[in-house]
Amino acid sequence: MTTDFAPPLGDFPPDALARHGHELIDWIARYLTEIRSYPVLPRGTPGTIAAQLPTQAPLQGESLDDILRDVRDLLIPGITHWQHPGFFGYFSITASVPGILAEILSAALNVNGMLWATSPAATELEQVTVRWLAGLLGLDDGWFGQLTDTASTSTLLALAAARERDPALAVRQRGLAGRADLPVLRVYCSELAHSSVDKAVMVLGLGTDNLVRIPVDADFRMRTDLLEQQLAADRAAGHRPMAIVATAGTTGVASVDPVRAIAAIAAREGVWLHVDAAYAGAVAVAPELRGVLDGVEGAQSVVVNPHKWLFTPVGCSALWVRDADALRRAFTHVPEYLRTDAGAPLDYHDVGYQLGRPFRALKLWMVLRAFGAEGLAARIREHNALAQRFADQVRATPDWEVAAPVHFSLVCVRYAPPGIDAGSADVLNRRILAQVNAGGRVLLSHTTVHGRVVLRLAIGNARSTADDVDAAWSALQEAAAISRRTPTPASA
Amino acid sequence: MTTDFAPPLGDFPPDALARHGHELIDWIARYLTEIRSYPVLPRGTPGTIAAQLPTQAPLQGESLDDILRDVRDLLIPGITHWQHPGFFGYFSITASVPGILAEILSAALNVNGMLWATSPAATELEQVTVRWLAGLLGLDDGWFGQLTDTASTSTLLALAAARERDPALAVRQRGLAGRADLPVLRVYCSELAHSSVDKAVMVLGLGTDNLVRIPVDADFRMRTDLLEQQLAADRAAGHRPMAIVATAGTTGVASVDPVRAIAAIAAREGVWLHVDAAYAGAVAVAPELRGVLDGVEGAQSVVVNPHKWLFTPVGCSALWVRDADALRRAFTHVPEYLRTDAGAPLDYHDVGYQLGRPFRALKLWMVLRAFGAEGLAARIREHNALAQRFADQVRATPDWEVAAPVHFSLVCVRYAPPGIDAGSADVLNRRILAQVNAGGRVLLSHTTVHGRVVLRLAIGNARSTADDVDAAWSALQEAAAISRRTPTPASA
Repeated sequence: MTTDFAPPLGDFPPDALARHGHELIDWIARYLTEIRSYPVLPRGTPGTIAAQLPTQAPLQGESLDDILRDVRDLLIPGITHWQHPGFFGYFSITASVPGILAEILSAALNVNGMLWATSPAATELEQVTVRWLAGLLGLDDGWFGQLTDTASTSTLLALAAARERDPALAVRQRGLAGRADLPVLRVYCSELAHSSVDKAVMVLGLGTDNLVRIPVDADFRMRTDLLEQQLAADRAAGHRPMAIVATAGTTGVASVDPVRAIAAIAAREGVWLHVDAAYAGAVAVAPELRGVLDGVEGAQSVVVNPHKWLFTPVGCSALWVRDADALRRAFTHVPEYLRTDAGAPLDYHDVGYQLGRPFRALKLWMVLRAFGAEGLAARIREHNALAQRFADQVRATPDWEVAAPVHFSLVCVRYAPPGIDAGSADVLNRRILAQVNAGGRVLLSHTTVHGRVVLRLAIGNARSTADDVDAAWSALQEAAAISRRTPTPASA
Repeated sequence: MTTDFAPPLGDFPPDALARHGHELIDWIARYLTEIRSYPVLPRGTPGTIAAQLPTQAPLQGESLDDILRDVRDLLIPGITHWQHPGFFGYFSITASVPGILAEILSAALNVNGMLWATSPAATELEQVTVRWLAGLLGLDDGWFGQLTDTASTSTLLALAAARERDPALAVRQRGLAGRADLPVLRVYCSELAHSSVDKAVMVLGLGTDNLVRIPVDADFRMRTDLLEQQLAADRAAGHRPMAIVATAGTTGVASVDPVRAIAAIAAREGVWLHVDAAYAGAVAVAPELRGVLDGVEGAQSVVVNPHKWLFTPVGCSALWVRDADALRRAFTHVPEYLRTDAGAPLDYHDVGYQLGRPFRALKLWMVLRAFGAEGLAARIREHNALAQRFADQVRATPDWEVAAPVHFSLVCVRYAPPGIDAGSADVLNRRILAQVNAGGRVLLSHTTVHGRVVLRLAIGNARSTADDVDAAWSALQEAAAISRRTPTPASA
């Protein structure tokens, strides 16, 4: 029996934490140093990892040595390494050193900041930190902020508040169903808006039929003329426009909807405007890039995810609303067991549906302090410059094209050699993606632009360098060359 | 300039992680050793911590030394110490050593398990671990499980699936509003059900008017006769019963609704039954205590929170459903940029609304292995025995009463000296609570039972001992004695 074996009762002793904690710290430092030696994407087919694990929990406790050995031998080979500097898929993220340190502390403190009284420092630091971040992004003092787990939740909360905006509807109390007095409530977004909008509309009981996706212009921006037409048509049909979701940095191509113009329409129509800047809002930390949020002062809510491009570990999504009371109307409900007489200015459970609330502010606060405004902006600028450099290389290469205007750190490319029809080129591009990702040096993802497959390279990890981006470009070219040598596939 | 100052670009170097990580590990080991020297509840009025922090983020990055010094000097004094063995408020929780170690690893890996492909080990370990936990709790193999952030989310997902159960209603697609074909949808729970049920009903657009709280019997269990009457009355009124939420371990007094009888009613009525066993479900790891989940096999969904009484850091809530397709009908929506051809058996974003998904399974898996089935059961039994011991002491003491049957590790007590009216006793009990919590050695919370204030002592921290519980009892008696010496307050 080793010294750290669980005693009959109680927790493992603090010296077990110390011993294994130090081991893990060394392991993590080595991991971050040697991370390029890992394949970004693990090899293996579905079920490989599960098959190596017992089907039941053990009866007796096991030693931490044994468990951590299995982590290393069984699990790490099955991890997709989001921290790898060659991870350019989806949106690249960073658990920076200050962020990791904060999470270590948070895990040990294990506070639940549901009420001010259940951890005053958690609530107050969250208030301070969302105000700091607002300042960095150029948001004025009139915004009320909070940190949630995901942009999915932030957008859900925002649209729940939108649904409650007109007290006469009494949605919270009376619900939406079985009411003759209630018209259909409609939500509008561009055809490129994120799937979290669809999911929020589903959850809120609005119906996907009532999420109207407005077509985009040639630059992939929501067409305000069509938005206005749709609003008028819906009013004429007796529907009630409830909210517009504008996107500043679409997932597919990072295009930015004309928020200022949309805000003017929303104001005129009395419709809630939510701005999804989950990815691209981060660039506003660079003063010369604040245009990304141009017009946002006219919105009712905005979401920016520090866990995307502000070097903060998951989950950390910042949601601001103009009117905190709109959130309170939607959510405040205090059962007796949560009542306090502390005179707290804010109990965060009042402005959302989740009661449990981890100490998310700590990691964001440590990241903002450690990098500073200028440090954050410098990294954002470098990523944007790397993206432009990559795009220039692609543009200068025959048979390749940049498939959409390059915004921020996202580049969409397509291999389109002459003499191949579009469907066959789609198959080729999918094949190239699979081969690049199987190579293990970099990871990209894909989307469609005008219905055609394109490969997305999104830069956002603080550790990514020009070498990593160059490695992606080499891998793409190599995969294309191999793909061309294999028989041309039939159209997809 | 210290060696760990942020370089112009990139992250802080791994040696900064190593140096400060080792410092933090030592600090945490010391913290856990000396934790009884901290006041559970910090002293200080709202705004004290925020006032000590700058109003803006720094322009230049700061050293990690400075930041961690501020954590120690400014934040730790404002933390409510949920890890203190004298924390008996709300439901007591534990970041056990295996759980903390897992969170350290998770922070560094920073994976998003939204798809199988975005981290196969995360998805597969979650499948394995929820199956392990199901086995420990006596749940059969017919349950599909997942881990969410909170019971609030688990219950929201379950009720969203319930709303979608009848495809003919097409709620996801058509929504609830403006439909002449849709009756009011009703949800039923006991008057003691948790506020997360109210919040789910709000979010889903069902309306709090349509959450019917069924009165409880003398043992604080939902009265099935009244449930049946209500269902019949609602059918007669043209409403549609959508779901029943039974609670196994109410927040106020830990009573257990008659799930088996309710399941029979739900089956007969074709109504979804969700069982909220967030707190007390944990006791089912002890085979002789599995009665807590008696009848759950007839439910459509059940939630148990490992981050409550299974020694796992927040957030970790386990949700099982009988029919995974019910969740898929409610939530599956795959935009092009999330499509994979990996042939994955499960992409977890398909069974919930949140896209981002931290590696929650790692901490639960490490905790289950480290403690083992018998280790978990032994701790649960000890907590229950401590609760009984505390209740016996209270019962044996004049002027004190145990205010509700003692279930599991929760004891509700009330100071009720003769000759004082109930309202004045309420004021006295609130005063006692405030004084006990101000003392710093223990923390309790309160609720009402039959409209009267009672003080809740909930045992659940793996580090709590008989001494800690005795300290709570001493503090209560001392505070009562002092309260009696001050002028009797007017009725509240």
